[in-house]
Amino acid sequence: MNTVTKPELTAAVEALIPQLTQWRRDFHRHAESGWVEFRTASLVAEELDRLGYGVSVGRDVIDADSRMGVPEPEVMARALERARDQGAVERWLPALAGGYTGVVAEWDTGRPGPTLAYRVDLDALDLDESSDNDHRPSREGFASCNAGMMHACGHDGHTTIGLGLARLFVDLTPQLCGRIKLIFQPAEEGVRGARSMVEAGVLDDVDIFIATHIGTGVAKGTVVCGHNGYLATTKLDVTFTGVPAHAGANPEAGNNALLAAAQAALGLHAIPRHSAGASRINVGVLNAGSGRNVVPGTATLKLETRGETSAIDAEMQRRARNVLHGAAAMQGVEMAYSLAGEARNCEPSPALVEFIRGHIAELPGIDTVIPIENRPSGSEDATTMMQRVRERGGLATYMVFGTELAAGHHHQRFDFDEDVLPLAIRTLAYLALQADDPALHRRPSETL
Amino acid sequence: MNTVTKPELTAAVEALIPQLTQWRRDFHRHAESGWVEFRTASLVAEELDRLGYGVSVGRDVIDADSRMGVPEPEVMARALERARDQGAVERWLPALAGGYTGVVAEWDTGRPGPTLAYRVDLDALDLDESSDNDHRPSREGFASCNAGMMHACGHDGHTTIGLGLARLFVDLTPQLCGRIKLIFQPAEEGVRGARSMVEAGVLDDVDIFIATHIGTGVAKGTVVCGHNGYLATTKLDVTFTGVPAHAGANPEAGNNALLAAAQAALGLHAIPRHSAGASRINVGVLNAGSGRNVVPGTATLKLETRGETSAIDAEMQRRARNVLHGAAAMQGVEMAYSLAGEARNCEPSPALVEFIRGHIAELPGIDTVIPIENRPSGSEDATTMMQRVRERGGLATYMVFGTELAAGHHHQRFDFDEDVLPLAIRTLAYLALQADDPALHRRPSETL
Amino acid sequence: MNTVTKPELTAAVEALIPQLTQWRRDFHRHAESGWVEFRTASLVAEELDRLGYGVSVGRDVIDADSRMGVPEPEVMARALERARDQGAVERWLPALAGGYTGVVAEWDTGRPGPTLAYRVDLDALDLDESSDNDHRPSREGFASCNAGMMHACGHDGHTTIGLGLARLFVDLTPQLCGRIKLIFQPAEEGVRGARSMVEAGVLDDVDIFIATHIGTGVAKGTVVCGHNGYLATTKLDVTFTGVPAHAGANPEAGNNALLAAAQAALGLHAIPRHSAGASRINVGVLNAGSGRNVVPGTATLKLETRGETSAIDAEMQRRARNVLHGAAAMQGVEMAYSLAGEARNCEPSPALVEFIRGHIAELPGIDTVIPIENRPSGSEDATTMMQRVRERGGLATYMVFGTELAAGHHHQRFDFDEDVLPLAIRTLAYLALQADDPALHRRPSETL
Amino acid sequence: MNTVTKPELTAAVEALIPQLTQWRRDFHRHAESGWVEFRTASLVAEELDRLGYGVSVGRDVIDADSRMGVPEPEVMARALERARDQGAVERWLPALAGGYTGVVAEWDTGRPGPTLAYRVDLDALDLDESSDNDHRPSREGFASCNAGMMHACGHDGHTTIGLGLARLFVDLTPQLCGRIKLIFQPAEEGVRGARSMVEAGVLDDVDIFIATHIGTGVAKGTVVCGHNGYLATTKLDVTFTGVPAHAGANPEAGNNALLAAAQAALGLHAIPRHSAGASRINVGVLNAGSGRNVVPGTATLKLETRGETSAIDAEMQRRARNVLHGAAAMQGVEMAYSLAGEARNCEPSPALVEFIRGHIAELPGIDTVIPIENRPSGSEDATTMMQRVRERGGLATYMVFGTELAAGHHHQRFDFDEDVLPLAIRTLAYLALQADDPALHRRPSETL
Repeated sequence: MNTVTKPELTAAVEALIPQLTQWRRDFHRHAESGWVEFRTASLVAEELDRLGYGVSVGRDVIDADSRMGVPEPEVMARALERARDQGAVERWLPALAGGYTGVVAEWDTGRPGPTLAYRVDLDALDLDESSDNDHRPSREGFASCNAGMMHACGHDGHTTIGLGLARLFVDLTPQLCGRIKLIFQPAEEGVRGARSMVEAGVLDDVDIFIATHIGTGVAKGTVVCGHNGYLATTKLDVTFTGVPAHAGANPEAGNNALLAAAQAALGLHAIPRHSAGASRINVGVLNAGSGRNVVPGTATLKLETRGETSAIDAEMQRRARNVLHGAAAMQGVEMAYSLAGEARNCEPSPALVEFIRGHIAELPGIDTVIPIENRPSGSEDATTMMQRVRERGGLATYMVFGTELAAGHHHQRFDFDEDVLPLAIRTLAYLALQADDPALHRRPSETL
Repeated sequence: MNTVTKPELTAAVEALIPQLTQWRRDFHRHAESGWVEFRTASLVAEELDRLGYGVSVGRDVIDADSRMGVPEPEVMARALERARDQGAVERWLPALAGGYTGVVAEWDTGRPGPTLAYRVDLDALDLDESSDNDHRPSREGFASCNAGMMHACGHDGHTTIGLGLARLFVDLTPQLCGRIKLIFQPAEEGVRGARSMVEAGVLDDVDIFIATHIGTGVAKGTVVCGHNGYLATTKLDVTFTGVPAHAGANPEAGNNALLAAAQAALGLHAIPRHSAGASRINVGVLNAGSGRNVVPGTATLKLETRGETSAIDAEMQRRARNVLHGAAAMQGVEMAYSLAGEARNCEPSPALVEFIRGHIAELPGIDTVIPIENRPSGSEDATTMMQRVRERGGLATYMVFGTELAAGHHHQRFDFDEDVLPLAIRTLAYLALQADDPALHRRPSETL
Repeated sequence: MNTVTKPELTAAVEALIPQLTQWRRDFHRHAESGWVEFRTASLVAEELDRLGYGVSVGRDVIDADSRMGVPEPEVMARALERARDQGAVERWLPALAGGYTGVVAEWDTGRPGPTLAYRVDLDALDLDESSDNDHRPSREGFASCNAGMMHACGHDGHTTIGLGLARLFVDLTPQLCGRIKLIFQPAEEGVRGARSMVEAGVLDDVDIFIATHIGTGVAKGTVVCGHNGYLATTKLDVTFTGVPAHAGANPEAGNNALLAAAQAALGLHAIPRHSAGASRINVGVLNAGSGRNVVPGTATLKLETRGETSAIDAEMQRRARNVLHGAAAMQGVEMAYSLAGEARNCEPSPALVEFIRGHIAELPGIDTVIPIENRPSGSEDATTMMQRVRERGGLATYMVFGTELAAGHHHQRFDFDEDVLPLAIRTLAYLALQADDPALHRRPSETL
Repeated sequence: MNTVTKPELTAAVEALIPQLTQWRRDFHRHAESGWVEFRTASLVAEELDRLGYGVSVGRDVIDADSRMGVPEPEVMARALERARDQGAVERWLPALAGGYTGVVAEWDTGRPGPTLAYRVDLDALDLDESSDNDHRPSREGFASCNAGMMHACGHDGHTTIGLGLARLFVDLTPQLCGRIKLIFQPAEEGVRGARSMVEAGVLDDVDIFIATHIGTGVAKGTVVCGHNGYLATTKLDVTFTGVPAHAGANPEAGNNALLAAAQAALGLHAIPRHSAGASRINVGVLNAGSGRNVVPGTATLKLETRGETSAIDAEMQRRARNVLHGAAAMQGVEMAYSLAGEARNCEPSPALVEFIRGHIAELPGIDTVIPIENRPSGSEDATTMMQRVRERGGLATYMVFGTELAAGHHHQRFDFDEDVLPLAIRTLAYLALQADDPALHRRPSETL
């Protein structure tokens, strides 16, 4: 069936490059952070619809209660207004409004075969982009025009890869089998969004799942078939509520929320190391008190735990919650927390990693193929999707396409070499062309 | 010399009441917080100048380097603009601009006698006034029109008392002796302003000094001749500067300012009690960190210590600074602090208290006279002025005029019974009429 | 009735001096700490019995369950053996054994009148006495022969005063009225013993109560009629029980009792000051952990709170217990505490203070009489007895007899000028001779 | 040259078994902890001397200043006396006295070849051995007769292995080449002794180095050729010295060492995780304060850090020392620490591991050979010796011989299956017989 030659594929992707550049820079310029990707999602949905994909958006692909770290309604309302001003496609907005900014596109080849899903993410970071002339997006006029929001992680590139694949698959249809599913996830930053797509059932029919990232310290020309370094993580927002009092006149009337938060911060960072693997704890933000001469009546913490395995992260959470409850009790204050983000750790399926390794070695532009990379690093909620696919007997992996970076991820001068876009599209499309490989047949023996 | 009768004095003050009410409500409506009392100070200066007083303002009465807790320049600029919009008298503004909002008026009777100084304060609090209909200023239309600023401590009344005295002394001149000095101090809240007037020399020629407060829990009709409860206090703004780092990828690269602040908060509150008298410590505000997944690189604290004596407060400060330095060293972070406010404790002069007690008992409206009140309470920086006067051989006291309050001081529904204004003016003026009493002659034996 | 002249009384006391010196030095040499005063109590009981007093000891004057801080049984057993070796009077030991070392003697004059009680204490401190030649007890051979126990607070003198009064009252009987009650209390150090005598009912029939201390910084020749400085206090022994684990191999298996204790220590010392008066907190001892490479599974604290009033101390305890529970919860460890001591604050009865002041001014050896001393200082559990007497309508006070000290109380070189012994006996006996003064008649109006 | 057959070797070792059992149980019964192994070392030296080895002891093999965690002189004196009573060989004691309890034996085969060193350790733990009848040493009468000292880690077995090898090599001399060095190290527990032998130069001429442990969770019949799990570690003893004061009368006069220790404990446990590998921190012991009512003037900590690499441990130490200095500064107390133990991490030489793996697979009793075991676990100071050998171009490894344990290492019911002794001796001796293998030739390329 696969009769597209590698040179033909390469040529098809080359032809797309001007469009890829335009998309990436447009998304970069109109950066939107998690759950308010109204413009981006509407443009993506419009393009996919135009191409003939079956497009689902909003609550059809996002389970409302499983979302985490959703902004306040007034923040959403302002962002929606701005998206309209910046050219969002109006007809998609009603479904996206309120923070339901996921898009899923399906393409049925009409031939038997597995359901192959690609996942990319849509959101920017809460960060002011550098206005320095040394920073290419600024110099060339595509720096973010939205204050406090910046694509400093490469998701603008990921969204572009998703659209590029969509275009390509239309033309490649005669050589494809099974079904293709393109998943555009909101709110990956803070690992807030994947769970809501999983709980909406988006992953339940997927046989082969590939999530994608560019950069992350991998050299240009290098491709990682299975990144295994993501730490499981849980994010909590915590509020301590005590009783304020005048610190000079009657300090004994107060219940001190600031001291509860201070005790908690120390107790959290003192949670013991775990002998089974890496763990992390961070109280990243603590704000407490209203005035110098008032016993502080409120305090808030933003914290996260991580673990090399989900079990380690769960143990960190168990202890963290003990610490929070105990610190509140020490000062006689109330404590409440809410889940602000969560991701699993999930190993790539060995069979899928091996399949990818075996097929991509000689694709143009790739000089090094790394089967599995075990470097512990940050966290990523595509793991929650991988977990669901593997639980249901499918194969899943997380691929990384190396590229040169102007500055590290999450830095206000982050930028990447756009050559990675066609390379990633070509590689990912090539894998779809091999989907009839018996190595990918669903087998009952695939377990976690 | 004193030929004004008590009924005549009472009648003169009665005639002022409509003006007093107008002043108080105008100041209340245009509340201005410490160091930005541009409108208030300009109106006060204009009125005093109109009455014929020798008026000094700005750097002549404020020592620039001795000011504490001065707002940022842009805050000042905005406040100055607003003052102009709200009717400030333009010709005084150049001298007041930049946070030099003190006013001193002098009146020489031409007859030998002591220099008698009255001190009132001008500033409002950083607080949103209640808009509730139960709150009289709201109901009657004189609630603060400046968001985040409110006269919730009665300084609008104090300023009014100062102006009322100024009016009265013009007419009473034939019955007065010596010199009268009316001191309108900025930035009493946070005990930030008195030191700058002391260091400018404003108190150096004062023989008799009376600071005034209304309310403070004293019943209507009761006058305290010498309040002795104010605690010495010192306010610090503290910054810890560490090194941020990605909390997942390389936590060991960070130096954690949040943990330094948490250690400091606990260490500060654990400073031992003092056997020589009451002490206080409060970390009222702690803000640290920039993002959940970043090891916090900065933290700030707003703290205050207090002591029943200045020596106790000094000991609290000595220990507090050890704690701050040590907490920074524990986490390998930098620490810097700045003085944001300071007040002494100072006992009223017994001779002056006795003099007042002896003279005011039978004035109309006063049913109870308390010579000395020893209740430890908040802090007040008129004590710094008292200290200077007493150091130089003068007599000083702090009088309180009872009144009914709608809610406690610093509460957003604070309001007071305006009957206290004529009563305070009458009482304070009556004392000036007795200034030739030999009991007030300066004696070398007056010591602290 | 009172026909003994002051010179006669003085002569009678002078005659006792050699016996007083012998007693004091014998008790000093055989120092016994709280609840193990077996030798001392037996000698006291024997002498009182010999003089004809009605003597009660053991459980008749000590309520078992109200004792606090009782030593372990094996400590008691060793101490009892040693007491026997050092000359305890065997016939009293069965009643005293097990830590019931109180003695109460009663003398009925046969004439109507009030019941007048004197309270002294028997116990030494857990301290090694100085063996230095500069230390008089060492030089003159009456330093403690019991390692780790020393009369460094003057209770040897107090016991001697009690016995001296007993001797004197026998001869003075014709001039006395009412009943005399001599109370020898165990375990005052740590404020552990008074409650057990109160709960045994020892104070229930007392009309006039005088507790006595020597020294405490009061000058020789000065007598304080009513000491009002004692702070209410509560002593707790705390145990945290966690789970030990190998700190290298599996630290996550441990629940760290040391960290719970550290959090608690900081939280306890950070309990807020009280605006109603002086408060204190001290974690005096913390012991945690068994080995360097083991996550600590146990930790113990010895702590105390104090308050200028019993209400303040109660508030300190309320917060302290919150801190202890919360700190345990933070680390997932168990916490238990036991009461190790407790004393009230109790003001002397004004009428009794005035009565004493009026009578003693001209007694020989007294050059200064201080009616009430309000200096906050340590704690004393005679206040619990005072409280009971006052609750039942009697009068109570705490007298201090000044003397020169070689070193402060509780110091290993503590010693006092023994001239204070006859002076105190003479003064206290003289007051008994005035017990028919109508000023002491029980009145229903006496309240706290 | 190697003409001894495996069966011959096996037979020779079998013949030794009664002697091995006698040695092991004698050492077990007379357990001696680190630096006081006077009896054990003297018996070892005597036997080696008897066999004709060149024996060095005391300061010839122990660098005095490099010892860590040496007991107090009086502890040593008592232990020496007891060793004499229990049969130490008197002539070696003068050199061993004072804590110089190392023994090194050399045997020159007279044939060219490498210097091959075996290291075993001599010391017991500070632990009371179980007296339970289920515990074989108790039941069979060879439990420790020294209170508070127990061979609960297997060093009695290690010493026996060293002596067994010594016996065997005498007979095997015709089949051996090069030189044999048997190193008996004191004070391995607490990683206190290896550094002193390294600094004395004991390792400087060693070409091939094999340290040995039995048990550690490895199954009977399994041999690990290179254990790579030991964490680098540093042990500190810390003292905080403040100023005591009466907690009721003048708490402000104290500088609180307990609070400094509490702050330090929290700060230490909050040292950040390291992204480069496992780290550990433990404050295992904290003792502070002298009495409930005294502000604590002293506090001591016993702590340890660990790291998967020496660099990580060094970073933990750097931060730990900042924490200690800062905590002392917070409370105005003095702080001092001393090094109580230290070990490197050191990887086994791959060439030596491969050599061992290749030779031992078919030796009797061995059913599983594990080349490298990477399980992070406790710490071991043979790594310091390995480091020195490798730095000088030699090859080094750490072998583990599996055996069944009655309870875990360091448990008071620890015991092992003595079958491991002949197996280890046979295996280690067999390796010596292969020392002419060219694979072991010293090569300049061997680096760390």
